[in-house]
Amino acid sequence: MKKIMLLNGPNLNRLGKREPEVYGQTTLDELEKSMERVAGTQGYDLLTLQSNIEGEIIDFLHRAEDEGVSGVILNPGAYTHYSYGIRDAIASISVPVIEVHISNIHKREQFRHQSVTAPETIGQIVGLGLYGYELALLALVNQLKGAEKK
Amino acid sequence: MKKIMLLNGPNLNRLGKREPEVYGQTTLDELEKSMERVAGTQGYDLLTLQSNIEGEIIDFLHRAEDEGVSGVILNPGAYTHYSYGIRDAIASISVPVIEVHISNIHKREQFRHQSVTAPETIGQIVGLGLYGYELALLALVNQLKGAEKK
Amino acid sequence: MKKIMLLNGPNLNRLGKREPEVYGQTTLDELEKSMERVAGTQGYDLLTLQSNIEGEIIDFLHRAEDEGVSGVILNPGAYTHYSYGIRDAIASISVPVIEVHISNIHKREQFRHQSVTAPETIGQIVGLGLYGYELALLALVNQLKGAEKK
Amino acid sequence: MKKIMLLNGPNLNRLGKREPEVYGQTTLDELEKSMERVAGTQGYDLLTLQSNIEGEIIDFLHRAEDEGVSGVILNPGAYTHYSYGIRDAIASISVPVIEVHISNIHKREQFRHQSVTAPETIGQIVGLGLYGYELALLALVNQLKGAEKK
Amino acid sequence: MKKIMLLNGPNLNRLGKREPEVYGQTTLDELEKSMERVAGTQGYDLLTLQSNIEGEIIDFLHRAEDEGVSGVILNPGAYTHYSYGIRDAIASISVPVIEVHISNIHKREQFRHQSVTAPETIGQIVGLGLYGYELALLALVNQLKGAEKK
Amino acid sequence: MKKIMLLNGPNLNRLGKREPEVYGQTTLDELEKSMERVAGTQGYDLLTLQSNIEGEIIDFLHRAEDEGVSGVILNPGAYTHYSYGIRDAIASISVPVIEVHISNIHKREQFRHQSVTAPETIGQIVGLGLYGYELALLALVNQLKGAEKK
Amino acid sequence: MKKIMLLNGPNLNRLGKREPEVYGQTTLDELEKSMERVAGTQGYDLLTLQSNIEGEIIDFLHRAEDEGVSGVILNPGAYTHYSYGIRDAIASISVPVIEVHISNIHKREQFRHQSVTAPETIGQIVGLGLYGYELALLALVNQLKGAEKK
Amino acid sequence: MKKIMLLNGPNLNRLGKREPEVYGQTTLDELEKSMERVAGTQGYDLLTLQSNIEGEIIDFLHRAEDEGVSGVILNPGAYTHYSYGIRDAIASISVPVIEVHISNIHKREQFRHQSVTAPETIGQIVGLGLYGYELALLALVNQLKGAEKK
Amino acid sequence: MKKIMLLNGPNLNRLGKREPEVYGQTTLDELEKSMERVAGTQGYDLLTLQSNIEGEIIDFLHRAEDEGVSGVILNPGAYTHYSYGIRDAIASISVPVIEVHISNIHKREQFRHQSVTAPETIGQIVGLGLYGYELALLALVNQLKGAEKK
Amino acid sequence: MKKIMLLNGPNLNRLGKREPEVYGQTTLDELEKSMERVAGTQGYDLLTLQSNIEGEIIDFLHRAEDEGVSGVILNPGAYTHYSYGIRDAIASISVPVIEVHISNIHKREQFRHQSVTAPETIGQIVGLGLYGYELALLALVNQLKGAEKK
Amino acid sequence: MKKIMLLNGPNLNRLGKREPEVYGQTTLDELEKSMERVAGTQGYDLLTLQSNIEGEIIDFLHRAEDEGVSGVILNPGAYTHYSYGIRDAIASISVPVIEVHISNIHKREQFRHQSVTAPETIGQIVGLGLYGYELALLALVNQLKGAEKK
Amino acid sequence: MKKIMLLNGPNLNRLGKREPEVYGQTTLDELEKSMERVAGTQGYDLLTLQSNIEGEIIDFLHRAEDEGVSGVILNPGAYTHYSYGIRDAIASISVPVIEVHISNIHKREQFRHQSVTAPETIGQIVGLGLYGYELALLALVNQLKGAEKK
Repeated sequence: MKKIMLLNGPNLNRLGKREPEVYGQTTLDELEKSMERVAGTQGYDLLTLQSNIEGEIIDFLHRAEDEGVSGVILNPGAYTHYSYGIRDAIASISVPVIEVHISNIHKREQFRHQSVTAPETIGQIVGLGLYGYELALLALVNQLKGAEKK
Repeated sequence: MKKIMLLNGPNLNRLGKREPEVYGQTTLDELEKSMERVAGTQGYDLLTLQSNIEGEIIDFLHRAEDEGVSGVILNPGAYTHYSYGIRDAIASISVPVIEVHISNIHKREQFRHQSVTAPETIGQIVGLGLYGYELALLALVNQLKGAEKK
Repeated sequence: MKKIMLLNGPNLNRLGKREPEVYGQTTLDELEKSMERVAGTQGYDLLTLQSNIEGEIIDFLHRAEDEGVSGVILNPGAYTHYSYGIRDAIASISVPVIEVHISNIHKREQFRHQSVTAPETIGQIVGLGLYGYELALLALVNQLKGAEKK
Repeated sequence: MKKIMLLNGPNLNRLGKREPEVYGQTTLDELEKSMERVAGTQGYDLLTLQSNIEGEIIDFLHRAEDEGVSGVILNPGAYTHYSYGIRDAIASISVPVIEVHISNIHKREQFRHQSVTAPETIGQIVGLGLYGYELALLALVNQLKGAEKK
Repeated sequence: MKKIMLLNGPNLNRLGKREPEVYGQTTLDELEKSMERVAGTQGYDLLTLQSNIEGEIIDFLHRAEDEGVSGVILNPGAYTHYSYGIRDAIASISVPVIEVHISNIHKREQFRHQSVTAPETIGQIVGLGLYGYELALLALVNQLKGAEKK
Repeated sequence: MKKIMLLNGPNLNRLGKREPEVYGQTTLDELEKSMERVAGTQGYDLLTLQSNIEGEIIDFLHRAEDEGVSGVILNPGAYTHYSYGIRDAIASISVPVIEVHISNIHKREQFRHQSVTAPETIGQIVGLGLYGYELALLALVNQLKGAEKK
Repeated sequence: MKKIMLLNGPNLNRLGKREPEVYGQTTLDELEKSMERVAGTQGYDLLTLQSNIEGEIIDFLHRAEDEGVSGVILNPGAYTHYSYGIRDAIASISVPVIEVHISNIHKREQFRHQSVTAPETIGQIVGLGLYGYELALLALVNQLKGAEKK
Repeated sequence: MKKIMLLNGPNLNRLGKREPEVYGQTTLDELEKSMERVAGTQGYDLLTLQSNIEGEIIDFLHRAEDEGVSGVILNPGAYTHYSYGIRDAIASISVPVIEVHISNIHKREQFRHQSVTAPETIGQIVGLGLYGYELALLALVNQLKGAEKK
Repeated sequence: MKKIMLLNGPNLNRLGKREPEVYGQTTLDELEKSMERVAGTQGYDLLTLQSNIEGEIIDFLHRAEDEGVSGVILNPGAYTHYSYGIRDAIASISVPVIEVHISNIHKREQFRHQSVTAPETIGQIVGLGLYGYELALLALVNQLKGAEKK
Repeated sequence: MKKIMLLNGPNLNRLGKREPEVYGQTTLDELEKSMERVAGTQGYDLLTLQSNIEGEIIDFLHRAEDEGVSGVILNPGAYTHYSYGIRDAIASISVPVIEVHISNIHKREQFRHQSVTAPETIGQIVGLGLYGYELALLALVNQLKGAEKK
Repeated sequence: MKKIMLLNGPNLNRLGKREPEVYGQTTLDELEKSMERVAGTQGYDLLTLQSNIEGEIIDFLHRAEDEGVSGVILNPGAYTHYSYGIRDAIASISVPVIEVHISNIHKREQFRHQSVTAPETIGQIVGLGLYGYELALLALVNQLKGAEKK
Repeated sequence: MKKIMLLNGPNLNRLGKREPEVYGQTTLDELEKSMERVAGTQGYDLLTLQSNIEGEIIDFLHRAEDEGVSGVILNPGAYTHYSYGIRDAIASISVPVIEVHISNIHKREQFRHQSVTAPETIGQIVGLGLYGYELALLALVNQLKGAEKK
C-alpha cells in the first residue's frame, strides 16, 4: 500500500501541552491517529515521525525517498526559519513535500515570517490549525493523482 | 442561503492566458464555475468578484461584512506584497479571510516572499495551484463549523 | 464662499464600525457633519470626500487645485505609508495640505511609523483622535490668514 | 492599421501645470497630439490613455494585448517605484513595453532610483524630457521591424 | 489653579535667532508669553521650562507628575531622534504629553524622520510653526475634558 | 528532594581545554561537582546535563517539565545566537530558565551580541565566569521562594 | 573601609512609582538601604548615586577611580542603548564595572536588545529584578577577591 | 565640424564575442562605423573611444571638455555600478553626457540595478540593444538644438 | 600511523543521488574509498565520518583532538552558513581544519555566499568538485610538513 | 582682544590618565596651557572649556555666539557619533567650528566612523594627536583672515 | 605548448615586502619562478602577469582568450571585493579561471568576506598561502583533462 | 634632501576648472607650486604626482617606499570611498600617509561620508580647502620629528 509520511519537527511532541492558546489542546498522538484515519480514506498508509533533532529530520526525509514514500507532510517547527540543512534535504529527494504551520506565523514575531524551507517544497499551508494537516494530505493526494495521469 | 466570497486581485482576470507555466491553463471563469460547484456541495452560495483596482478590493471586503458573507477566499495577487490598504480592510471587518496563492511565492523573486496582508487573515495556502482555492473553501467551512459550535 | 476640502482615504468609510478601540465610535458621516459646522464658524464651506481608491484620491487633490479650494485636510489612511502617487499629487498642486492621523501611528506597527506623503504637506497632526481634524482646520485657516497678509 | 499605445500614469494629466521646472510646460494633450503625428510618420495609429488609478493602468495593459496593439510606451509615474501589480500586468501580456521617465529619476529622491516595473519591460528611457517618448516610439518601431524579420 | 507645562528642549532657547528661515523670528520668551495668554483663556496656568540638558528634561517630566501638572506640551528638539531616556521619562509618568515640532521634520534630513519619543506620547503636531504649540494646548485641554467626563 | 537542572550546550564539554584565555581552566566535571555542592547548601539536588546536539537540549528542557524540575540554569553556547528551536522549547515549558554565559559575549564578535533564547528566559548572567552559574542558582532559588510565597 | 559604588541612571529615581508591572514596587531609597546592608555583610561601604544626566554619570564613573572605589554596580537605564559617552567613561577608568538591568531587556522593544556600554564592563545581569543588584555585588566581591590573590 | 564622443567602457571591446545572448553579435568596430554614419547624417563628427581602464575613461571625459566636444554618449559598462570617479568626472565637465546600456540592467543581477554615474548625466537609455546608442545620439542632437535656441 | 579525518556534513550521504547536476554522480562511499587511497600515498590513514546532525559533527571535531588526528578535511554542507556551534568546535581544538565545498557556493543562492565556519579554519577550497577534497588533503599534508619543520 | 574657544567634550578631562596608548600622556590642563600659547602667537585669547554634559556643550556653543567668539575648536568626544543636539547647536550659531579627534576614529570601532556633527562644521582634523588642535587653530585663523578680506 | 596564465592583481608586486605576517616572505618573482617549474611538470608553459591597474587585468583576461591560454590562475587582490569590471571580463571569456587568495579572507575585515568575482570563476582557493597557487594549477590541469575527455 | 610626496587622485587635475563653488579656483599646478614653497621652508623636497588611474596611485605609493620618501600627503578623490586597492597599498608600505579632502565630505552625498582608505592612514584633514594640504604637510613634519626623537 502507498505511504505518506507525516513528519513533525521540534517541540511538536509537546502539542496539547505547549502554549495551548497558540497550538490548541489536541496531543501529537491524537493528531497522528486522526491523520491515519484520513489517510486511510484516501487509500494511503501514514508513516508518522517526530524529532527535535534537525539531523534526524534530514535522515527521515532521505528515508522517505529510500522507502518509496509518495509524499511528505512536513511541519519543520522553528527549523523553518533557519535550517538550510532541511531545505537541502528536501531538494535532495524527489518526493513531493508540503509544509504545514498550525499557527499563522505571519501574525507572530518577525523571525517567523521567513521560511527558508518553503522554496524547496510544493507549497505551504499556514495558520489553519490542525486542520491544515488534513488539507495538506488532500493536496498531496491531489498532486499525486495529477502526476499519475501524466 | 449562506454565502462565501471568492475575491481575486490584479491580473487574475488573465488566468489561463497569463504565464501558463506559472499559473496553469484554466481561466478565471472556469475557476469560478468550479468553485461554485464545490461551495454548493458544502451548502454555500459563492459570490465571485475580481478587480485590478486596490480600492475596489477594499470596497468588496467591506461589502462582505455589510452583506453578511460568512467568509472570504482572497487572492490579493501582487497587492499581497505592499497593500497595507487591503490589510487594513481585512482588519476592519469581522468576516474571516483566507489568503490563497496559486504559485509557490517563496520560490520566486525576493519581493514575493513577504505578505503584508497575511497577518490579518486566518491563514494562507500557497503554491498548491487552483486546488488551493478548494482547500481554502474547506478550511473556511471547517472554521465556520467550529465557530458555530461555540 | 471659500472652500476647504476634507479628504479621507481607505477604510475611513468604516469609521465607527472599524476597530473602535483604535478609531472610536463616531461614523464618517457624523465626523463630516461636525467638521462642516466648525468650518462654517471659520467662514469656510467644507467639501467632504472619501475614497478607497488611490487614484481617486489623486484625482480629488487635482480637483482641489482646479476648483480653487483654499486648503486640504487629508487623512491618507494606509496609503500614507507607500503611496508615492499621492505624494506626487500633493507636490503637483499649490493648495496647502495638512495630514491627519486619528491614532498615534508611532505606537503601532513599524510600517506605520513612516509617512511618504508628509514631506510634501505643510504638516501633520497625529494621534489626537477626531479632534485632530478640527485642529487641522484651525491650522489651515491660520495658515491662510498668514498667506493673505503677505 | 497597426496601433501603438501611449499610456501615462498618475499625475501626468497635470503635465504643463505640475512642477514645470521638473516636467516642462507642454500639456498632456499637446504631448499626445505631437506623438500621434510622430506615430503616423512611422505608419502607426496611436492609442493615448492616462489614468491615476493603478488598476486601470493594469486594465489598459491587458487591453493592449486583447486589441492587438503592437507595442506600449508606458510612463508609470510614481507607480514605477512600488507597483508590483503593474509589473505583473506587463509580464502577463506578450506586447512589448518600453518605460519612459521625463525627468532623470536618478538625480532625485532615493525612492525614485528603483523601478519595480523595468525588469518586465524591454527597456527604459530616462531623463530626456518629452523627447524621450518620441525615442521610445522609434525604439518600439525598430523592435517590431526586427521581430517581423525573424 | 490647574497647570499645563510647556517644556522646550535643546537649542529652542535660540528661537528667533537660530536659522530663522526654518524656525521663524519669534523668540522663546515671546512664545512663552503668548502661550501663557492662550492657557489663561482656557483656565490654566502655564509652567514654562527649557533646557539643553537631556537629564534636566527628564527631571522636569518627573516634576510634572510630582507637582500635579495636568498635561505637558513637549518639544524635545533634536533629542526626539535618539533620547530613549526622555521616552522612558514620559512612560514613567501618568501625565499626558503632546509632542510638538515647529518645522516639518519629514521634509528635512533622514535622521529627523524618526521620533523615538512619540510612541509614549498621546500624539504629535508637526510642521505647523509656533501655532502648533497653541493647537497642542487645545488638544490637551480637549483631552483633559474628555478624561474628566469619564 | 527538589531539583534544579544545570544544562550546558555545545562545546562546553571542552571546558578547561577550550580556549582557556576565554573560558578558564576548570573542567565541566569540576564545575558540575562544585555546583552540586552549592545547590545542596540551598536544599536542591542538581541534575547535570550537557549536549552538543540542539535537539537533545530541546529534549532535556521538555524533560525538566516532565520530571518536575524546579528551575533550569542554561548555557546554550553558540546555539544562543540562532536556535529558535531552543527558544521555543523554553516557551513550551513552565519551568523558569536562567541563561548563563561565561565570557562577556558583548566584547566578542558581532554575532554573539544577540541572544535569540533570552526573550523566553527570566533573565541572563553574562561575563562573570563560572561564578555566573552560582549566581544563576541563587537567582533561581530566590525566584522560587518568591513564587512559593504567592 | 573599602567602597563599592551603586550608580543608577535615568528614571531609576522613580523606582516603585514607574511602571510597577515592569520594575516592581520597591523605591530607589529602599533599594539603596537594602544594598548598603548587603555590602556591609561583605565588608564594603556603599556609595549610592543616581542621576538622570548622562554627563553626571560620566563624572561619577571618573570619581570612582579618583576616590579609590573598588568596583561599580551600574544600571545605565535607557543610556545603555546609545551612550557611547558612558561607554568611554567605563573604558577610561580601571575600576571594574558590572551592568545591571532590572527587567529582561531582551523581552521588550527591539532598541533595548543592544547594550553599547556592556562591551566595556566585566559582565551583565539582566532581568532578575532588584535581586540582580545583590548578585552584582556578590560578583564584584568575588572578582575583587580573585584580583587580590594574584 | 562639431563633434560627439562615443565612449565605451570595460569589456565593450569584446562586443560580438562576449555573451552574444546578452549583447548581440555586432562587434565594437561595426558599431562605431555605423554610429559614425548616423552622426554624419546629423552633421556631427564622431570621436570613438574605448577603454577598460577607469582612469582613462576619466581622462577621455576631461578631453571631451578640452577639445570642445558637443556631447558624450557613454556606456560605462560595469563601472556604472561603482565608479564614483567617473561620476565625478562627468560632474567636472560642462559637456552633456547620456548613459547607454545595451542590455536591460534591471532584468539582471541586483548589483546592476544601481547606476552611480546616472545622477550626473542628462539621462539614460537602457535595454534597447545597439539601437540605444543611435537614440542617445538623437537625444544629444535634440538637446544641443534646444540649448542653441536659448 | 598518522591520521587525517574526512568529515562530511548534512545531505552529503546522498552524494551521487542528490542533484547530480550540482554535485556529480560519485557516491560518498566511492569518494571515501578514493580519498583513502590518496591519503595512503601521503602516508596517512583516513578516518571517514559523515553526519546530518550538527551536534555529532561537533563531537567528531572534538574527537579529532582527543584521538590525535593530524588534520581535518571538513565539508559542513548547509551548516556552513549558520552553525556557530561548529565554528566554536573548530576554535576549541588545535587540529588544523580545511573547509571544502564541491559546488561554487558563490554562484548559487545569496545565503550560500557566507561561511560562518571559515574564519576558524586554515582555509577553504570551493567549487572544484570532488577533486577539491584531494587538494585539501594535499594542503593539509603540506601544512603539517611546514609545522614539523618549525 | 579676539577670542577662540577650545571646547572639549566627554571624558577629555581624563586626558593623560585615560587609555594612554590611544590618547597619549599629556593632561587636559597641559593641552590647554600649550594651546593658549599658540593662540597668543596668532593674536587670539583662548577660552578653554570642557564638559561631560551634552547640554552644557550646547550652552557653550551658544555662548560662543553671544560673547563674540571668532571661532570654536571642538572635540565632541563620544557625542560626535550620536548628538544631533550638538549638531543643531553648531547650526544655530554663525561662529565657525572645526572638529578635532585625537585618535584616528576610522581605525577604531565601527560606531566611531560616523560623525553626526561634522556636516555642520567647516571641517575635521582626525588622528593627528594633540597636534591636531594646533592645526585646527591655524585653520580657524586662516579661515578668519580669508573672511576679513572679503 | 599549452599555456596557463598566472595573473596577480594589486599590491601583489610587493609580495615578500608587504605585511609579511599576513602574506609571507617569498617575493612575487620567486613565486612565479616556482610556479613555472610546477607548470612545466604538468606539461604547461606559464604566462606570468601582474598589474595594479584594474583595466589592465581586464585586458589580460581578454588576452588569455585571444592567445588560446588553457586556463587562468587569478588573484584579484583587493579588486576581489568590488571589481564588477573584472567579474564581467571573466564572464566575457570562455577560458576557465580559478581564484586564489593567499590569506584566509574570512578571518579578516568584513569587506574581505565577499568576492564579487568568484561567481564567474570555476572555484576559489582561500587561505592556503602560496601553496594555494600550486593547488589551483593542479585543479586547472585536472579540469582541463576532464574537458578533454568529453 | 628629504622628500615628501604630494599625491592627488582622480579629477584633481581639473582643480580650478571643476565645480569652483566646491573646490575653489586655484589650479593643481598653482597648488603644487605653493606646496613646494611650504615644503622647502620645512626642509623637504616635494614630489608632486597626480593620476586618474587607481592602479597608478597604487604604483606611486609603492614608489614612495622604494624611493625613501619620508611621508605622503594623499587626496584619493572619489577613490576614497571604494578603493580597497589603495587602502591595501597604504598598508603595504611603512611610509606615513595623511589623507586630505578639500571639501567637507560629510556635508555632501551619503556615499562621500565613508572613507575606506582612512583606516590605514595616520589621519585625515577634511573640508579646510587647499589650506588642508599645508596643514597635512605640517602634520607630517611634526610626525617625522617625533619619530626621529625616538
